[in-house]
Amino acid sequence: MAVNPNISGSVVALAGGVGGAKLVHGLMHVIEPQQLTVVVNTADDFEHLGLHISPDLDTVMYTLAGLHNPDSGWGLDGETWNFLTALRRLGGETWFNLGDSDLATHVERTCRLRSGEALSEITSDFCARLGVRAQVVPMSDDLVQTVVHSEKGPLPFQDYFVRQSCEPAVLGFQFEGIVTARLHTVARTALHAQDLKAIIICPSNPYVSIAPILELPGVRQQLVERRSPLVAVSPIVGGQAIKGPAAKMMRELGVTPSCEAVSEYYGGLLDGLVIDNSDAAESASITKDGPRVMLTSTIMNTLADKIELAESVLEFAGDLDVLGT
Amino acid sequence: MAVNPNISGSVVALAGGVGGAKLVHGLMHVIEPQQLTVVVNTADDFEHLGLHISPDLDTVMYTLAGLHNPDSGWGLDGETWNFLTALRRLGGETWFNLGDSDLATHVERTCRLRSGEALSEITSDFCARLGVRAQVVPMSDDLVQTVVHSEKGPLPFQDYFVRQSCEPAVLGFQFEGIVTARLHTVARTALHAQDLKAIIICPSNPYVSIAPILELPGVRQQLVERRSPLVAVSPIVGGQAIKGPAAKMMRELGVTPSCEAVSEYYGGLLDGLVIDNSDAAESASITKDGPRVMLTSTIMNTLADKIELAESVLEFAGDLDVLGT
Repeated sequence: MAVNPNISGSVVALAGGVGGAKLVHGLMHVIEPQQLTVVVNTADDFEHLGLHISPDLDTVMYTLAGLHNPDSGWGLDGETWNFLTALRRLGGETWFNLGDSDLATHVERTCRLRSGEALSEITSDFCARLGVRAQVVPMSDDLVQTVVHSEKGPLPFQDYFVRQSCEPAVLGFQFEGIVTARLHTVARTALHAQDLKAIIICPSNPYVSIAPILELPGVRQQLVERRSPLVAVSPIVGGQAIKGPAAKMMRELGVTPSCEAVSEYYGGLLDGLVIDNSDAAESASITKDGPRVMLTSTIMNTLADKIELAESVLEFAGDLDVLGT
Repeated sequence: MAVNPNISGSVVALAGGVGGAKLVHGLMHVIEPQQLTVVVNTADDFEHLGLHISPDLDTVMYTLAGLHNPDSGWGLDGETWNFLTALRRLGGETWFNLGDSDLATHVERTCRLRSGEALSEITSDFCARLGVRAQVVPMSDDLVQTVVHSEKGPLPFQDYFVRQSCEPAVLGFQFEGIVTARLHTVARTALHAQDLKAIIICPSNPYVSIAPILELPGVRQQLVERRSPLVAVSPIVGGQAIKGPAAKMMRELGVTPSCEAVSEYYGGLLDGLVIDNSDAAESASITKDGPRVMLTSTIMNTLADKIELAESVLEFAGDLDVLGT
């Protein structure tokens, strides 16, 4: 699919895992990949079996490399699970799915982190080797770790998310280490680029995928001072999350899951919100004192869906007059 | 195959990798497995990709569990190699073969070592989970590392053995850390057992598999003071090593590879030496001022071969009058 010649300039996308990866996969086909900077949540990162695992970074990297499992959205296509079977036999912890090929990423990354390389350098090298030409950057090289405050007490994110299948009702979230963490320079620079066409908040979980990026010191301020439109794509469609616990979290936090709730969560930050056609009825209430709304199909099953949505989002961003907002 | 009722008492076997594993596999079928203590060389252990790898321990463990690859002698049967393929794609070091299932052993062991467990505890737990009823014990929980002094300078053992395929001519060996390392208590106790029937030096490489065990402080003295026969099985057959670089090392050290050279290497330590029928001509020169010799077929291709050799070795040991030697 050819790059759309009507769309020029650079783009910054803020992304979590599967939903975010899908949209940036589309974006990569719509603009020159080198013009795309994907700032990826790393507050889900954790150490497991002595390995540093960066689930969102890997999902974005594998997806942009075309190596992802198209059914699950995470992990590698054609993955095998012999490591996990053998680990079970040895009595190891098998609640987190680690495929045989995927494991190479974790082992090699952990080894390089221990030798002093930064997560961003390693990510950049892995991406180059896998043929990913977009700039994929962890939100920070500093360790930030999401703690899910739940009815069962505080839980490390992956414990909540994978081990307990998001079952405990959430009370709130805390991003340990965020006060001293810094947005990665590459992300900071990309947000300041003269030719920046748009900042896109991907359809990722607002609470646990996007919030850690926004709450890094200085990021909200940098976004408030932006000279380019900021557009989010709602991860909620028809009151449900396409994937993951976003809608469940909203309910547990006393919020009715809706596109409007997404808009309100991002406060006055958004210039535009892209919602699914099926949520057209919400449009008026969102735009009242809120961002402009674009209706389109936001469900991305195929690469064509991703590209179409990416194109619509960028065209919508191009139509927004930021300075006049 | 039933345990031989004529053979009673406990047995200690000193073993390296493939050759040692074969004989102890046979021994495990000839005596009650609980009566067998296998003291395994760990001077080949190394850290690779941030993982602690114990090649000889794994070979012994996999073999006794019946999970070994019968063709190569090392690694797991039916192993897959997707991790290594993915690692190559990421630019990682792939010279050491790490199978997908095998990797579970290294990851889990490394994780447990880092959490403070001893190598011997982990080994014991792994063996129990894999159904190995013989007592498999690392020679020491202390780190000992073989350095191969070669024409190319000093080389870490696995660098010499795997990465450089044993090509550099050797000048000598050094076991770093051995002066402060201690023979594992389980091994020490087994060597002192009242019912100890025999101590077997397996057909492993004398220089790099058996020497590290013998050179642990106090071990030679403990063997000299033994009250049970000490029998070695020659790893050299027809002037060649069945597997590995033992014969090549001998030549490089100016020794003609032979069973006699093996006997001389072990000095006055042996009561008996088991050599292959094809080396019958050496028998007289070995026994002259040396140990008693038993001729048999020492090549172990099948489980039946292993059992037959194990049985012969134990019967030979039973015939030796240690105190009278």
